[in-house]
Amino acid sequence: MAAPSPGYSISLRVETPVSFTATSDIATAVAGTGAAVTGLDVIESHHRFMTVAVGCDTVDAAHAERVREAVDALEGITVHEVTDQTFQLHEGGKIETTLRVPLRTRDDLSRAYTPGVARVCKAIAEDKDLARLYTIKKNTVAVVTDGTAVLGLGDIGPEAAMPVMEGKAALFKQFAGVDAWPVALDTKDTEEIISIVKAIAPAYGGINLEDISAPRCFEIEARLREELDIPVFHDDQHGTAIVVQAALTNALKLTGKKIEDVTIAVAGVGAAGTAIIKLLKASGARHIVAAGRAGIIERGSQHADANRQWLADNTNEEGFSGSLKEAVVGRDVFIGVSAPNLLDEADVAAMNEDSIVFAMSNPDPEVHPAIASKHAAIVATGRSDFPNQINNVLAFPGFFRGLLDAGASDITDEMLVVAAEAIAGTITDEELNPSFIIPSVFDPEVSLRVAAAVAEVATPRS
Amino acid sequence: MAAPSPGYSISLRVETPVSFTATSDIATAVAGTGAAVTGLDVIESHHRFMTVAVGCDTVDAAHAERVREAVDALEGITVHEVTDQTFQLHEGGKIETTLRVPLRTRDDLSRAYTPGVARVCKAIAEDKDLARLYTIKKNTVAVVTDGTAVLGLGDIGPEAAMPVMEGKAALFKQFAGVDAWPVALDTKDTEEIISIVKAIAPAYGGINLEDISAPRCFEIEARLREELDIPVFHDDQHGTAIVVQAALTNALKLTGKKIEDVTIAVAGVGAAGTAIIKLLKASGARHIVAAGRAGIIERGSQHADANRQWLADNTNEEGFSGSLKEAVVGRDVFIGVSAPNLLDEADVAAMNEDSIVFAMSNPDPEVHPAIASKHAAIVATGRSDFPNQINNVLAFPGFFRGLLDAGASDITDEMLVVAAEAIAGTITDEELNPSFIIPSVFDPEVSLRVAAAVAEVATPRS
Repeated sequence: MAAPSPGYSISLRVETPVSFTATSDIATAVAGTGAAVTGLDVIESHHRFMTVAVGCDTVDAAHAERVREAVDALEGITVHEVTDQTFQLHEGGKIETTLRVPLRTRDDLSRAYTPGVARVCKAIAEDKDLARLYTIKKNTVAVVTDGTAVLGLGDIGPEAAMPVMEGKAALFKQFAGVDAWPVALDTKDTEEIISIVKAIAPAYGGINLEDISAPRCFEIEARLREELDIPVFHDDQHGTAIVVQAALTNALKLTGKKIEDVTIAVAGVGAAGTAIIKLLKASGARHIVAAGRAGIIERGSQHADANRQWLADNTNEEGFSGSLKEAVVGRDVFIGVSAPNLLDEADVAAMNEDSIVFAMSNPDPEVHPAIASKHAAIVATGRSDFPNQINNVLAFPGFFRGLLDAGASDITDEMLVVAAEAIAGTITDEELNPSFIIPSVFDPEVSLRVAAAVAEVATPRS
Repeated sequence: MAAPSPGYSISLRVETPVSFTATSDIATAVAGTGAAVTGLDVIESHHRFMTVAVGCDTVDAAHAERVREAVDALEGITVHEVTDQTFQLHEGGKIETTLRVPLRTRDDLSRAYTPGVARVCKAIAEDKDLARLYTIKKNTVAVVTDGTAVLGLGDIGPEAAMPVMEGKAALFKQFAGVDAWPVALDTKDTEEIISIVKAIAPAYGGINLEDISAPRCFEIEARLREELDIPVFHDDQHGTAIVVQAALTNALKLTGKKIEDVTIAVAGVGAAGTAIIKLLKASGARHIVAAGRAGIIERGSQHADANRQWLADNTNEEGFSGSLKEAVVGRDVFIGVSAPNLLDEADVAAMNEDSIVFAMSNPDPEVHPAIASKHAAIVATGRSDFPNQINNVLAFPGFFRGLLDAGASDITDEMLVVAAEAIAGTITDEELNPSFIIPSVFDPEVSLRVAAAVAEVATPRS
């Protein structure tokens, strides 16, 4: 069974007889179901009864129901209300707009709005570049999705995608001071998405594409990069690639191997897998095989999909042919962004000495990290409940901070490389160890370093 | 010459010899140009010189330059810097995004983002209506423009329109707690604008159309009203109409006339004029003539433009034919949303006894209020430097507050009528006088009353 998680915490409001053992009885009953008690308070006390609030982390909805039943079954005790703390937190949404200027007097109004604002409008009409100075453009990013590939949930639509987009916007602000706004589009048409993003672009200093399904995401990203004069980032591709590259840099350092020499198998050839391979190559990797559902993509094979064709033309120089399980034999690095349980213990055991396994399928990895760590020197996942979490939050806030600070109009491979180096470099040689190859998302150094590195290579040398 | 305005205030940074008369010399020089000194401080003092900051309101750029020259001409005094306070205020834009939830710990992250957020997404995917509960939708409005009819500036494009849209968003928040976001579109194509607004709608609880030129604004508004399940408001139409109706209600009260009986001439048949006429009719007015550039629109005349045709079919029951100047003779009410200086003193003198003149062309009214007030009982303008400012800020924040609170899906004529009544009713019988027919935008009662009135008629009686 999975561990109880704060992502599934509940509060119970319970009525009990007045007694000094009631709270401990409740705590025992909750713990007896396997839930983790996080708080317990008497919130009202009367002559004949008292009201107790109990908070606990559970595993899932069924577990939460078992907690309720266990408490309800206690003699004389009634559960009045069960609140899901995650849903409660989401009430009213996670972001809001606030004013950067005072609007309390007539003078304020006449500067921030009419008649004063007209002069600012006129100045921008005469020189569009002034939009970066006198509007929100310089610090604002659109988080654009069509809701077709949200987390592991698939095509859930724009309304249901909003909590993730709002969360992303909140992370942008919290970790890098970037104002981000969710743009959840009620269309899946590639051309329409492209033209909408172009049309809304004047307000923004950058576009962050998010959770748009492959292969449309490639076309949308490529076209927008070409047609817009602000940078276009696809977090599922570039954010993931940066953090994987950062983790791999430190993992190679620990195992004393070189990126030029190691053999790498990547499972998953969607947005993330392809971007990871591109960045691996930009960072010097030379021996990569890529596995789709049908096995390793063969060198020089023909594909209708342009992305798949790029992989056939740019990976597997050695001409390997076979399954993923066959491909990992004797290999140095496995990187999975695909599906749960593709590898077993024997597969990891068959890898090269001091092997590196990044099993990032979410929530269930390609191989359980406890199993992988029996044979691999270094193991990372996408989960926060194991060491070495590969988390995009390490990359995108600082990356955009750097782009916006530099007024960048494009994203280059060099920026991705230096961002990965900046993340890797946050961990000192003394700190570096097999369970700590990637910094915490709460390390404030990370976004500062990423921003500085990106801004430096983004700034035109004039 | 116009009066100095805080919308055109500047600060000068001046170096002077150390002297106790220097500051008064500077103040005298500034005042001598006709500017209004708003602040004067010694900000640094050294052995041989001191630095003085002077703030003043000016009339325009040429006047600001005369202020600089006047100070610079003083013996031993040098102006180092002239800063335009309106531009300074706009630096970095006027709104930002902020978090409504904490993101400081791993537990916070696992509730607001992965893995917890996935459950909220799933719940909305199963029941879209939950978007109003668990996302920003319930409190968020899109302020949509294409930048074609911004203030009196015309078609200045989406970048240059942003300061107005940001200002609008700031006003929404300040006066009614509504989160509004600027959507400045780089397209003028009616169909494209309609399809973009439909595509972005999932994130929003309402749409506020803004500064889109006629006649496209009519088509865009009508189609979006039909095709969206959230309310669509066009501030240039509905906001203006509500505030004019509110002012007229109080003006009629003061003059003892009835809306059913008065004769009304409206100059201007664009977005604002048409909406004003529609609301006048919904409020009971029966004798209206409308003047375009070619004179009064004749009853039953044929027009290619659907809006113009509606006016021909629904105004001028008396069959009047002629110019605007001819039309105002003997009339009770003149409402202008057209162009400067259409009427002169003789025209106002020729109106009925106790006439009402709303001359709202901006910045220069159809007739100067000082002239109009010689003959009219009540005069209002769109300007803040005369009494009775007809300002949309009185309407749109509270109107949307009411729509969002009620979860309204449409805007009805009844809502416009009750909003106007709510604004008019903010002024008590004791307060009401010819120079105070409309409340201040800073009266906190206004948006509360408008919101309550709109929400009441918006809520389905079930």
